[in-house]
Amino acid sequence: MHLSTESAAPTPGTVRPGGRTARTRSAVRDAVLTGLAEHGYPGLTVEYVAERSGVHKTTVYRRWGGVEGLVADALDLAGEDAWTPPDTGNLEGDLRALAREVTETFGSASAAAAPTAFIAAAFQSERAAQALRDFYTERFARCESVVRRAVDRGEAPSGSDAAAVVRAVSAPLFFRVLITREPIDAPLADQTAAAVAAAVRAGAYLPARR
Amino acid sequence: MHLSTESAAPTPGTVRPGGRTARTRSAVRDAVLTGLAEHGYPGLTVEYVAERSGVHKTTVYRRWGGVEGLVADALDLAGEDAWTPPDTGNLEGDLRALAREVTETFGSASAAAAPTAFIAAAFQSERAAQALRDFYTERFARCESVVRRAVDRGEAPSGSDAAAVVRAVSAPLFFRVLITREPIDAPLADQTAAAVAAAVRAGAYLPARR
Repeated sequence: MHLSTESAAPTPGTVRPGGRTARTRSAVRDAVLTGLAEHGYPGLTVEYVAERSGVHKTTVYRRWGGVEGLVADALDLAGEDAWTPPDTGNLEGDLRALAREVTETFGSASAAAAPTAFIAAAFQSERAAQALRDFYTERFARCESVVRRAVDRGEAPSGSDAAAVVRAVSAPLFFRVLITREPIDAPLADQTAAAVAAAVRAGAYLPARR
Repeated sequence: MHLSTESAAPTPGTVRPGGRTARTRSAVRDAVLTGLAEHGYPGLTVEYVAERSGVHKTTVYRRWGGVEGLVADALDLAGEDAWTPPDTGNLEGDLRALAREVTETFGSASAAAAPTAFIAAAFQSERAAQALRDFYTERFARCESVVRRAVDRGEAPSGSDAAAVVRAVSAPLFFRVLITREPIDAPLADQTAAAVAAAVRAGAYLPARR
């Protein structure tokens, strides 16, 4: 579900219409991701993006305004993928698969580079922070189907706070990787999923508890 | 429990020995926190810290080496406070108090400035990341007494993974404030505490589950 260069790359048959404009946007987005990964947000410049993407600097300025606009648009584009949450047939399995995606993303330096760079940029740019908020709001809304299916199967009490559940299963992993700077691994993902599933079953995510 | 200017400030009767050296270190630390909050890590300079603290630039270079050393030492100093975790008499109450500390810290712009700046700096400096890891490792080790007391009272199964429990109750709040950029509030802190307490009671944090 995460912000990675890989997930945003087009695959055969999925290229959206748009021709040259879409190709330009995609080339610029790739240059932004590479620049963020190599130099971080403070070192990203329009000059770098123009040179790396082969798109003229005046075109970059005209269409994106500057570095903040470039980062925000790269995030918007990352949100346009066709990702759907896992469907393993039971709540704990789905939560485990979601948690494992986080450990897999951050276990790979190339997959971790883009999400890490976007999250770092949001500390320095309010526009990047807004784009990140929009990205995660939409992404976690997709994840909520995991909880709806669990309610339909009778695994979760009706009325469980799906938004809180899907965030709770990612949070301890992101928290360690990007805030407390501690290692994460698949057993930790599984423990996190087991804990959240147990809390759901116990009714701790019913609205009365908020 | 969090990295704030307030918690690190000396209170009467608690000033540690050290005289002029300790006062210099404290003045430099205050200048680092102010600089981080005002300019962020990319804008922090030894010149700024020297001017703001009144400590000569050559002294700052000699004792701290540069900006990375300044940030790391400010974090070390923040870890030297006398903070102890809440003791409300029951597990969910203690977890709720821990979670509420996070919402209170990030609900106040002045209290949030230092932790946010340190966490942002760790994206750009490996030395800051190591200092942050050390800070949180030590801080969460203090928090584990909350789980040990719950085991002693028979509220939590013996062998529960205390390190995971105390991180799980903070993580969804930090995740929203600093990663997904969503709002947090006291009811969310309470929901998080209720969920983690329910998972503990269900045995989801027993080591066999990892």
